[in-house]
Amino acid sequence: MAMLLIGFGFLMVFVRKYGRSALTATFLLVSISLPMYMSMKGLGIFEAKGEIEQLILAEFGAASLLIAAGAILGRIRMIQYIILGLLFIPFYMFNELIVIGDYFHFVGKVADTGGSIVIHAFGALFGIAAAVSLTTQEDMEIPIESDATTDKYSVLGSMVLWVFWPSFCAALVPIEAIPHTVVNVFIALCGSTIAAYVASVLIRGKVSIADIANAALAGGVAIGATCDFASHPQAMIIGVIAGAISTIGFAILQNKQQRIHKIVDTCGVSNLHGIPGIFGGLAAIVVIDGIDIYAQLKGITITVFIAVLAGLLCGKVISLFGKTKDVYDDSAEFLANE
Amino acid sequence: MAMLLIGFGFLMVFVRKYGRSALTATFLLVSISLPMYMSMKGLGIFEAKGEIEQLILAEFGAASLLIAAGAILGRIRMIQYIILGLLFIPFYMFNELIVIGDYFHFVGKVADTGGSIVIHAFGALFGIAAAVSLTTQEDMEIPIESDATTDKYSVLGSMVLWVFWPSFCAALVPIEAIPHTVVNVFIALCGSTIAAYVASVLIRGKVSIADIANAALAGGVAIGATCDFASHPQAMIIGVIAGAISTIGFAILQNKQQRIHKIVDTCGVSNLHGIPGIFGGLAAIVVIDGIDIYAQLKGITITVFIAVLAGLLCGKVISLFGKTKDVYDDSAEFLANE
Amino acid sequence: MAMLLIGFGFLMVFVRKYGRSALTATFLLVSISLPMYMSMKGLGIFEAKGEIEQLILAEFGAASLLIAAGAILGRIRMIQYIILGLLFIPFYMFNELIVIGDYFHFVGKVADTGGSIVIHAFGALFGIAAAVSLTTQEDMEIPIESDATTDKYSVLGSMVLWVFWPSFCAALVPIEAIPHTVVNVFIALCGSTIAAYVASVLIRGKVSIADIANAALAGGVAIGATCDFASHPQAMIIGVIAGAISTIGFAILQNKQQRIHKIVDTCGVSNLHGIPGIFGGLAAIVVIDGIDIYAQLKGITITVFIAVLAGLLCGKVISLFGKTKDVYDDSAEFLANE
Repeated sequence: MAMLLIGFGFLMVFVRKYGRSALTATFLLVSISLPMYMSMKGLGIFEAKGEIEQLILAEFGAASLLIAAGAILGRIRMIQYIILGLLFIPFYMFNELIVIGDYFHFVGKVADTGGSIVIHAFGALFGIAAAVSLTTQEDMEIPIESDATTDKYSVLGSMVLWVFWPSFCAALVPIEAIPHTVVNVFIALCGSTIAAYVASVLIRGKVSIADIANAALAGGVAIGATCDFASHPQAMIIGVIAGAISTIGFAILQNKQQRIHKIVDTCGVSNLHGIPGIFGGLAAIVVIDGIDIYAQLKGITITVFIAVLAGLLCGKVISLFGKTKDVYDDSAEFLANE
Repeated sequence: MAMLLIGFGFLMVFVRKYGRSALTATFLLVSISLPMYMSMKGLGIFEAKGEIEQLILAEFGAASLLIAAGAILGRIRMIQYIILGLLFIPFYMFNELIVIGDYFHFVGKVADTGGSIVIHAFGALFGIAAAVSLTTQEDMEIPIESDATTDKYSVLGSMVLWVFWPSFCAALVPIEAIPHTVVNVFIALCGSTIAAYVASVLIRGKVSIADIANAALAGGVAIGATCDFASHPQAMIIGVIAGAISTIGFAILQNKQQRIHKIVDTCGVSNLHGIPGIFGGLAAIVVIDGIDIYAQLKGITITVFIAVLAGLLCGKVISLFGKTKDVYDDSAEFLANE
Repeated sequence: MAMLLIGFGFLMVFVRKYGRSALTATFLLVSISLPMYMSMKGLGIFEAKGEIEQLILAEFGAASLLIAAGAILGRIRMIQYIILGLLFIPFYMFNELIVIGDYFHFVGKVADTGGSIVIHAFGALFGIAAAVSLTTQEDMEIPIESDATTDKYSVLGSMVLWVFWPSFCAALVPIEAIPHTVVNVFIALCGSTIAAYVASVLIRGKVSIADIANAALAGGVAIGATCDFASHPQAMIIGVIAGAISTIGFAILQNKQQRIHKIVDTCGVSNLHGIPGIFGGLAAIVVIDGIDIYAQLKGITITVFIAVLAGLLCGKVISLFGKTKDVYDDSAEFLANE
């Protein structure tokens, strides 16, 4: 189980393409959210659990926080990332308590082993909602720069995540279900990788390496809700669909979304985590025999609701603390190379 | 055992130095070969096995495929990589079935725990044979470019593989043999690393960082066949010899090979995987008490035979689909940086 | 337990910023020290142990050697690294034998599970003492160059180490103590990361990315001695203090140290491993109930004594073999890119 820690570490690495700020922010967000989650768990509201399980749950929370931060990366100051972390974790835990823990006994049993809904969709929607107050006219006009090295980095980061994804999903699965879960996650990832390539070529004519880097992982996001229940062919189908819709998102919808909603989603988290996460949650209804359909739909709806509301609120609060002077440039806060 | 997945992931990273095409090809080859291998295993010809064991065997196949692709990297189009994957896996499984599974009962018991013969030598020979039809006069005149950053990447990739190699070899070893196997593989890698340095200095006068990056791993390739049987001093000797012959291969033979056989072996897989793999398979004859010498020799011969024949055939088929316009340059198929 | 191997591999990666020489040196140091440690263990003086435990202890030794090498990196020739490795390991094992093995029965029981004292402080002090004979006037005038890419590499290397640190500390802990140990190490690392950021901003006005990359790990160094005994809040306090003193060391003391002691400590090992290591060893006196205070103090004193003496001696011996012509430039020993 401890293998999750590794995968998790590389999740941080993945966000590296915006330089020193992104790396430092990632480091700080993780360092704040882990102890915060674990100490809040000790307050008595929550079910008592083993230390390792609690650590893994804390890491799930940190992963969701990093996804949320991905939507506004590059446009806030370091102190604002810290505020984001402090505000995000309580909302995340509240949603987890209601949807997974069924604290108020009005949701029922939601299938979401690997966190398609409560980790990926929650984080993505929170981040996008927060971006509403944190996107200026200027942000929309400045292109997010990348170069060949940066692009290669993202594919490598994506590969690392790809390889570790199964351990992430299998971290809290009962030991006898681990082999089936691990194979399912790999198959879904294979599906989304192939689909990402095909969709990228069909839509754009040429391959966009950014599509591959991102959409290859969409299968992992989407299989989360059903990773221990789906058959292998179902896992393949879920992966292929997730890869395709994620690529369509990156290649077609992203620019439209920015123009219509006036939001810049720096890392494209809505296309990688948001839509595939919700798709994965809905797929459980088809895949899992005897699933409580209403509980599943309620769980998704509540997650969307809390994430958007909390994200809007937090975005507003964070925006009170100002804004980076130079978008996507960290020289205002970092020393030049010595 | 699941640790193998990680090592495997980094195997892909290792091939990164030819840019976006190499990364995308790696991603696609893995995504095609894993489900293909696993679904073919379900056809009934093969012995039934646990899901994790099957996944590991599928990854062994994918690793061998990546080795084969290393020989022709940079000179074919993306669609041709896909064809390579589709053609390679059946031949690989056929060879595995005959040599390891002893399907026709005419080989006997071959010692090849870590795949020196059926993974490394097979993949390398297949790749080189395929390169016969896929090397043009032009390829031989264009140097394969690398720069300081690229070189550092390969050493880092090599280090990652170095560290994960023992888990790769120990993945299917019985649990009580794991400690001895892991230590043996590390010792062999230490031996080949030291030998690579010494040989590089002796042959070239100065150190070639490419020699270090490659030949340091030769001990891991060669110890594969005997990793659970060799004593520690034997492991050291195998490692040192493998490191030395691999370095000699890179420093002296590679250019001659290209001129004589009219083949360009992009990643030098014959020197890293081919020769050390066969050496490792032969070393088993000396190292393992009571080994069936004829079975071992038959296993090696059959592997060489199938690999070369299948490689020649597949190279021919792949060459029917054309050729990249610009060798070692992926701008024809990839979008420029956005 | 085998997870330590991975963390260890990335420790090597961390040292990469001085290019091909650093990488090759790292490779060689590890390849020499592992078999040397293990074969010396077989001489009969030492307690017999399982093969994996012995491998892990050998890796602890290699880690300490890499720390020592960090202090003089970039200023010696390749052959001198090899001599360093050959000289270091016997002294390291001698210190380990006396302080941890209590061979002469005059130290008593020292608390140092994760090696704050015998791995980190020993390696750092050895390296700094060796630097006395290996620092020239010229070294002190030449700045150690880094650039934006290099800086990002170090943060990434630091993140990898951060994630693997808990498995390093927990590698030899009894299985029932692993969860508490792992959580403690993570908490200490969170503490030092936050402290490094805060201290860097307070001292320098802006964030130095090098401070973050280094001091974020100081909590891991310091918690080593008490990782299985400290409570979680104590782990947080130890982490915060270690991160703060390490950042103060990098930001304020490093330049003074160089001027006063006429030593250049290339990687700043005294601030990352030396001071936090000794602090961690001392913290055990406060943290662990019923600890043998005199044994702990004796253990630290003996380690400091042996490390400094052995380091001075080895530095002298190594200096007899000459010096690199061009400091921090490896073109004298490496072929240009082919």
